[in-house]
Amino acid sequence: MKKEINVGIIGASFMGKAHSNAYLDVSHYFDLPVKPVMKVACDKNPESLDLLVGQYGWQERESSWERLVERDDIDLIDICTPNMYHKEIAIAAAKNGKHVICEKPLCMNANEAKEMLAAAEKAGVKHMTAFNYRKIPAIALAKKLIDSGKIGKIHHFNAVYYQDWLVDPDFPFVWRHDLKAGGSGAHGDMNAHTIDLARFLVGEVSAVSALDKVFIEERKKSDGSGSAKVTADDAMVFLAKFDCGAIGNFMATRFATGRKNYLRIEIFGSEGALSFNLENLNELDYFSRQDDVETQGFRKILVTEQEHPYMQMWWPPGHIIGWEHTFIHEIGDLLLAIGKEEDVKPNFYDGFKCQQVLDAVLYSATNQKWVEVPDF
Amino acid sequence: MKKEINVGIIGASFMGKAHSNAYLDVSHYFDLPVKPVMKVACDKNPESLDLLVGQYGWQERESSWERLVERDDIDLIDICTPNMYHKEIAIAAAKNGKHVICEKPLCMNANEAKEMLAAAEKAGVKHMTAFNYRKIPAIALAKKLIDSGKIGKIHHFNAVYYQDWLVDPDFPFVWRHDLKAGGSGAHGDMNAHTIDLARFLVGEVSAVSALDKVFIEERKKSDGSGSAKVTADDAMVFLAKFDCGAIGNFMATRFATGRKNYLRIEIFGSEGALSFNLENLNELDYFSRQDDVETQGFRKILVTEQEHPYMQMWWPPGHIIGWEHTFIHEIGDLLLAIGKEEDVKPNFYDGFKCQQVLDAVLYSATNQKWVEVPDF
Amino acid sequence: MKKEINVGIIGASFMGKAHSNAYLDVSHYFDLPVKPVMKVACDKNPESLDLLVGQYGWQERESSWERLVERDDIDLIDICTPNMYHKEIAIAAAKNGKHVICEKPLCMNANEAKEMLAAAEKAGVKHMTAFNYRKIPAIALAKKLIDSGKIGKIHHFNAVYYQDWLVDPDFPFVWRHDLKAGGSGAHGDMNAHTIDLARFLVGEVSAVSALDKVFIEERKKSDGSGSAKVTADDAMVFLAKFDCGAIGNFMATRFATGRKNYLRIEIFGSEGALSFNLENLNELDYFSRQDDVETQGFRKILVTEQEHPYMQMWWPPGHIIGWEHTFIHEIGDLLLAIGKEEDVKPNFYDGFKCQQVLDAVLYSATNQKWVEVPDF
Amino acid sequence: MKKEINVGIIGASFMGKAHSNAYLDVSHYFDLPVKPVMKVACDKNPESLDLLVGQYGWQERESSWERLVERDDIDLIDICTPNMYHKEIAIAAAKNGKHVICEKPLCMNANEAKEMLAAAEKAGVKHMTAFNYRKIPAIALAKKLIDSGKIGKIHHFNAVYYQDWLVDPDFPFVWRHDLKAGGSGAHGDMNAHTIDLARFLVGEVSAVSALDKVFIEERKKSDGSGSAKVTADDAMVFLAKFDCGAIGNFMATRFATGRKNYLRIEIFGSEGALSFNLENLNELDYFSRQDDVETQGFRKILVTEQEHPYMQMWWPPGHIIGWEHTFIHEIGDLLLAIGKEEDVKPNFYDGFKCQQVLDAVLYSATNQKWVEVPDF
Repeated sequence: MKKEINVGIIGASFMGKAHSNAYLDVSHYFDLPVKPVMKVACDKNPESLDLLVGQYGWQERESSWERLVERDDIDLIDICTPNMYHKEIAIAAAKNGKHVICEKPLCMNANEAKEMLAAAEKAGVKHMTAFNYRKIPAIALAKKLIDSGKIGKIHHFNAVYYQDWLVDPDFPFVWRHDLKAGGSGAHGDMNAHTIDLARFLVGEVSAVSALDKVFIEERKKSDGSGSAKVTADDAMVFLAKFDCGAIGNFMATRFATGRKNYLRIEIFGSEGALSFNLENLNELDYFSRQDDVETQGFRKILVTEQEHPYMQMWWPPGHIIGWEHTFIHEIGDLLLAIGKEEDVKPNFYDGFKCQQVLDAVLYSATNQKWVEVPDF
Repeated sequence: MKKEINVGIIGASFMGKAHSNAYLDVSHYFDLPVKPVMKVACDKNPESLDLLVGQYGWQERESSWERLVERDDIDLIDICTPNMYHKEIAIAAAKNGKHVICEKPLCMNANEAKEMLAAAEKAGVKHMTAFNYRKIPAIALAKKLIDSGKIGKIHHFNAVYYQDWLVDPDFPFVWRHDLKAGGSGAHGDMNAHTIDLARFLVGEVSAVSALDKVFIEERKKSDGSGSAKVTADDAMVFLAKFDCGAIGNFMATRFATGRKNYLRIEIFGSEGALSFNLENLNELDYFSRQDDVETQGFRKILVTEQEHPYMQMWWPPGHIIGWEHTFIHEIGDLLLAIGKEEDVKPNFYDGFKCQQVLDAVLYSATNQKWVEVPDF
Repeated sequence: MKKEINVGIIGASFMGKAHSNAYLDVSHYFDLPVKPVMKVACDKNPESLDLLVGQYGWQERESSWERLVERDDIDLIDICTPNMYHKEIAIAAAKNGKHVICEKPLCMNANEAKEMLAAAEKAGVKHMTAFNYRKIPAIALAKKLIDSGKIGKIHHFNAVYYQDWLVDPDFPFVWRHDLKAGGSGAHGDMNAHTIDLARFLVGEVSAVSALDKVFIEERKKSDGSGSAKVTADDAMVFLAKFDCGAIGNFMATRFATGRKNYLRIEIFGSEGALSFNLENLNELDYFSRQDDVETQGFRKILVTEQEHPYMQMWWPPGHIIGWEHTFIHEIGDLLLAIGKEEDVKPNFYDGFKCQQVLDAVLYSATNQKWVEVPDF
Repeated sequence: MKKEINVGIIGASFMGKAHSNAYLDVSHYFDLPVKPVMKVACDKNPESLDLLVGQYGWQERESSWERLVERDDIDLIDICTPNMYHKEIAIAAAKNGKHVICEKPLCMNANEAKEMLAAAEKAGVKHMTAFNYRKIPAIALAKKLIDSGKIGKIHHFNAVYYQDWLVDPDFPFVWRHDLKAGGSGAHGDMNAHTIDLARFLVGEVSAVSALDKVFIEERKKSDGSGSAKVTADDAMVFLAKFDCGAIGNFMATRFATGRKNYLRIEIFGSEGALSFNLENLNELDYFSRQDDVETQGFRKILVTEQEHPYMQMWWPPGHIIGWEHTFIHEIGDLLLAIGKEEDVKPNFYDGFKCQQVLDAVLYSATNQKWVEVPDF
């Protein structure tokens, strides 16, 4: 009989749904030493909570996260709330001896992240930052190819994250437009992903120069009570220097008309190159300088072979997986780590290091100058 | 309290797994008037059965399908066995008043299919042939565009289904290589899909001229007991005439080196055109003659908008779904039909009509001549 | 001082223009032992002739091809007339000791082609059939890869040639719609190309089964004198068996809405695969089973390296060439052969063998049965 | 009889060849009021000059540009030398009343450019900066779509220019590696193109923040005399603000392994979006927010219709043109302007404005800070 891991999830919106789906499916695909139980869902908003519980069958509901993190029957706290609550919840959970997975960005700034990391380490619990894109098979394959030397010394890391839902001027003012509520706009939400992938695949960022932009400065409130000023960035672009000598170019925007969830990474190294796009997440483009000149070219690898990361548990070659599978892989890795009492990556340290870069970029954009990313 | 629909699944291999996944997830995404219960799994092979039950949590196991179809507590029989057993099981299930979903191709030939259809209709049960590719959002969108007149009168329907797992000469002899066991090779397995899509999108096929091929005529048995002669086709290609005046071109092969599960459809009409590829199943290419000449071009539609078929239940735009979702949509449509006491498509009639074309193609290939597809 | 080769071109339409462009440019890129001189252009229609001569600077004009082929000062006759005149002109030219290049299809049927070949061989002149797509660097590279064994034994050759200019119902009746004038419609014009490529890359075709179609049966004459019945095919599709055991699938249509000049070839072999599309003629997709499974994928080769066929004379890597360059390569190869007194390929034998397949396909379509392609 | 325009070309390397090809072909495709004559080619290096004259048939040769610009029989000076000589030649040519076309970047810095512009304007001659990529039909179409309002207010202009020939560590030290000789490395050569396209399509750049990089700091000299220090940038990336409120992101690198001449532009506006890649220069991707949500998607426009810019003179739809055609269009536009006594674009003013941005980027990279681009 496997040990049960009782999960308490906090936050019943988009990410709450994606994580719930993962808990439903994970034990059917991962060979886990523990058994996850969808024990308690928690949200301040009773309607959202009803929807989540109704859809995914969480056993119990709870309106107060403070109570939830203190319950003896909970082993793992999964934080899917807005960013401003991450720190407080994560620290309380850790203090109560719960394992913690927290959505990205890890929190509002690096100082908060440092506290969270310290609390988790002190408590000796497993901690994970939910950078789910590391868990895409094509990205995991990219990492493997880089680690094996097939790309060589990396010279360039270029990343864009394009969405377009704000290009509509009638899209109403929401909390994400408010700098105080969200910390930033497209930046924290989208660059958090690409910065984490950069750290995962290339290494640490040492300095940045950034430019942010609000394209539509006022939006109507959805409740009809007039307009509000948009203070959080619609777009954030920045240049980066890496410790390893590579140079980086990052862009996040919600004004990329026609692109829905287009995260493109291009990596150029001394021996090869890689290219990836989230809208075709089952594919990885790979170029090798080892190939004969006559037949060199970018190979479009369909990352669905049994030999590819995470794919042995899924379907035969050519049968693609979707975006939601990244969460199954993420939660699977976490539960494996809990069961085997091993560490899991990406953890709060990764969340903290990402946050340092996020902070430096914001500071650079505000002050229009190059900013060093502090070392730990 | 929703009425429970107790499911008995027969066949614990690849399709048994894909259907099981759908039963796990379907009620979390479809708004169903009934509640599916994963009641009994059945397979002659106890090891396979153990694996399926272990992975997906079927409540009970059964080694005899004959017993299963007679159980009073079963409402729906799901047939995932090899083709040769489909007819017998489906008819027995129907006679016992069970709803039936059966994997494709529906059976071994059109005569069998006719019997199955008659039995199901007589029993008044819901019957479905599991042509899951109709349930791909991009294909459902294609159907919608065709029905709305945007493609106009269809002139061409070209379909290829490419796989490459048999190009390896060391791949051993299995039952699929034996004409007697499988009825055909690539043909029944792969052309069944494209013929159904042709019927769905264009209409009935009236005549065919076919060519089949075995490229590697002998393969070693996996048990080391020598070699066996391959009698089932490695590839089957055929020309087709449609009732509506369109002409068709179909190809199925397991020797398409480098293509893993590549089903490409191209439709050209008097007003527009469509192109689709299963390895990028979230996309549909669409050309409209209504666009200005200067800006005409194939539009790559990322079929992930809330406005697109089946997508409202999933994730925000740009967050792609995978191959397995087609089964969730299929089972969802079936359960909706059961709950609402409505008919569901594609049903055994569709399976029968597909089988007629499959038969005609086989006969054409064997006799090297044009063959008419009989009317009902 | 290089020997001058005086050229007489017959036919001042589309192909006359494309060939003229080649004569203009060829000596600037090929290192030729002879010097082509654009001596005489000939066309019955004085307006067309004026246009061609005016645009390309042919030194003299001639209204009668009979006179032209007898002139002592002409070394090479270039035939760009409608197909029905090819035979007579080519034979007369050969008899007068002129080298001959003739547009494709070589003539109206294989018997004519045989006569042309015999006449050219008897006269000992150089003869070329203008299958210019062999001269695309990507196609020449494909040939090289096949000859070197990288594709292995070929199983499949699939070719489509898509255009869409006849899908417009207002496009008027022209001679190409008249079976008597053109011999066939899309078939002779477009399948001639793909059949030649099949012979070049795979080998001889032994049998065919074909289907033709006229989608719009009557078109208005452009002179306002009412309508005429379309007798030449709008589309022709056929299955083929190759001597080497491969199977083929060919399609030519002028009703492929949205496709302008889309010639796609897919070749699948025991060791690798190739894919090509004329609308991106600088690219060749190549898959190798020798690559590690983990990193296998179709390589998109940008065929612009100095190491690639014909490319050393052009621009640096990545600087693409256009469709017209295929004619420069073709005329260059012909002039090299004339200068070096060597044979050139593709020659009238290739035109003849292509014609045999074209004839067999037409016969098959008319008689709705499999037809053997006669051996020489 | 058309007036003859006698051309004197200076510089017999890569660009000299590309321009020569254009003079050969231009009068066969453009309907010109004047007749260009390939009169004199000039280069200090007699071997290079022999090659150019031999290949393209320039009537005379000249070793001194000073003599050439003073010859009475020359009407147009075409400058294809290294950048450091541009200014002196252009000014001398203008003073002698010659029309001038000069390769990009126009010169070494904006001050030089200003002098050149003043000299040309004072002399009243036609002046052109050879930003040939404006003359790509797809780019001209992009301009037309933007001007007609189909893209709306532009928010983003993202451009990369990728080449990879320096990633090879054995590539020897050449003058392009020397900051003093070239002014910059990848920057001046490649960003000059994308900055000009940005100005053409979006408008003036007001401020930049840049990062440059030398990846391989020492290279062996090709003459075997040891190594030399690389001082010119291997890569230059910068952020930009436009006067119109758009933000820009530019990257030029010769270390983009696997990319040969890959210039990608992405433009996102309030009504639509555009995407272009030089390696497929016959295509333009276009997204329109006016399309129905259900069928929205990037349209791949094959820019080969008679309705598309410059294409009426070429081949039927789907018959692509190559990189070299951009020069034919450029020289054609220049000769039209000379014949009609009209101004031509892009001219020295455009070269000057581009140079201002180039200078600002260099200054920014050196000083690691944001830099304003001065107004005229």
